[in-house]
Amino acid sequence: MNPAVWLIGAGPGDPELLTLKAVKALARADVVLVDDLVDPQVLQYCPQARIVRVGKRGGCRSTPQDFIQRLMLRYARQGLRVARLKGGDPCIFGRGGEEAQWLTDRGVACEIVNGITAGLAAASASGIPLTQRGLAQGVTLITAHSQDGSTPDWSGLARSGTTLVVYMGVAKVNDMSSQLLAAGMAADTPVAMIERASLPGQRLCPSTLADMARDAEAFQLRSPAVLVIGQVAACRVLGIADAPAEAAPPLRRLA
Amino acid sequence: MNPAVWLIGAGPGDPELLTLKAVKALARADVVLVDDLVDPQVLQYCPQARIVRVGKRGGCRSTPQDFIQRLMLRYARQGLRVARLKGGDPCIFGRGGEEAQWLTDRGVACEIVNGITAGLAAASASGIPLTQRGLAQGVTLITAHSQDGSTPDWSGLARSGTTLVVYMGVAKVNDMSSQLLAAGMAADTPVAMIERASLPGQRLCPSTLADMARDAEAFQLRSPAVLVIGQVAACRVLGIADAPAEAAPPLRRLA
Repeated sequence: MNPAVWLIGAGPGDPELLTLKAVKALARADVVLVDDLVDPQVLQYCPQARIVRVGKRGGCRSTPQDFIQRLMLRYARQGLRVARLKGGDPCIFGRGGEEAQWLTDRGVACEIVNGITAGLAAASASGIPLTQRGLAQGVTLITAHSQDGSTPDWSGLARSGTTLVVYMGVAKVNDMSSQLLAAGMAADTPVAMIERASLPGQRLCPSTLADMARDAEAFQLRSPAVLVIGQVAACRVLGIADAPAEAAPPLRRLA
Repeated sequence: MNPAVWLIGAGPGDPELLTLKAVKALARADVVLVDDLVDPQVLQYCPQARIVRVGKRGGCRSTPQDFIQRLMLRYARQGLRVARLKGGDPCIFGRGGEEAQWLTDRGVACEIVNGITAGLAAASASGIPLTQRGLAQGVTLITAHSQDGSTPDWSGLARSGTTLVVYMGVAKVNDMSSQLLAAGMAADTPVAMIERASLPGQRLCPSTLADMARDAEAFQLRSPAVLVIGQVAACRVLGIADAPAEAAPPLRRLA
């Protein structure tokens, strides 16, 4: 049975980071519902499809989740092949699971097509090896604020020995820094704050746990950005120099 | 400047989970060094290249890391374009960072091409939403045993509120279960053990923290497998039934 809805991860921005599976699904889609964080270049792979934008634009509120789900259901019941295109991976802070569950409960067959999640792409493009032996036991992907209002257990995370990769954290840099310091993480723990991961104009602001709020402000760090906290954040295994705050050099690309 | 060496993530197995960037790099490579965990189908994208297998085969010891690095250096100095193909993502337990650092230190330009890491692919293919709101604060990727002999801080991880995704954990199921129980994680915490993620014959063994060792044995769980520990492990957002232990149904695929 073919799925009626593909929940597709568009990756971090660079259209070359789409998977072959995503490109094939996009080429077959009749209608594509697109989130804001998806780079417009990705849409080159579905010129035949009707494009429906469902993200925030120009300060407007984002399309209500319930409306998006009902729209997908309506299209699927019309017999259309629906692609739901999300930034990064659909199930890493992308609500892909909720949408799949809602549609599955209503008899609509879904398939989840993985994407490269922004945290991993940001680190690789910056030469930061997230799980480097001797420096990290693994890697934890978190958001600084969850949509149910709860906050992560920073104390457990500080003790875990894993590299912390924080999504959607720009507005919460100060809180995060305070909580992790209070949990006993060293003030000089390296931090790398990466803006526009994988896209031209990617910038990296190096810092430490104690200074990250001040440094982010001086750097004028803007969303979307990924924050890497842990010993590996000081590594630059590709020998790429950090971006100066006043410049935005193009990303080194596969020519 | 073009890189002399691409460190490429081949993804979890399904060749359609390669990125466009990986496919382009493979098509340009003169020589491809391949790890064992890479599915042979992936090599269809580099028919022009010389293939050098550097993984474990038939119980032999794996090729020493130092030898692999010197081989890449030699090829790069001969002016050849070298692709180093690793399972999953090159920097998630893949030593991609170490290889990039070693080559960069010797003046060889490298580029890291992300791949879909096995933990995320295993979960998505099973309908397990790793960061589902209300159930998880995020997700932690770890190995059960690191190569420097250290073990994760299970107590910190148990408290973190994140879903745990354990790589290379089949031989350590018993240890892990004991440590997490001792750290206070609930005995009935859902567990999903996923064998051959994304490949035909993928199997899922559902269990709990207390019973995972016994269940893995009854299921005859074999490496490579990914273990998901946390409330989300009980979710099946795609409505896919778990594989019975005696059968190995084909993965539901994009036709």
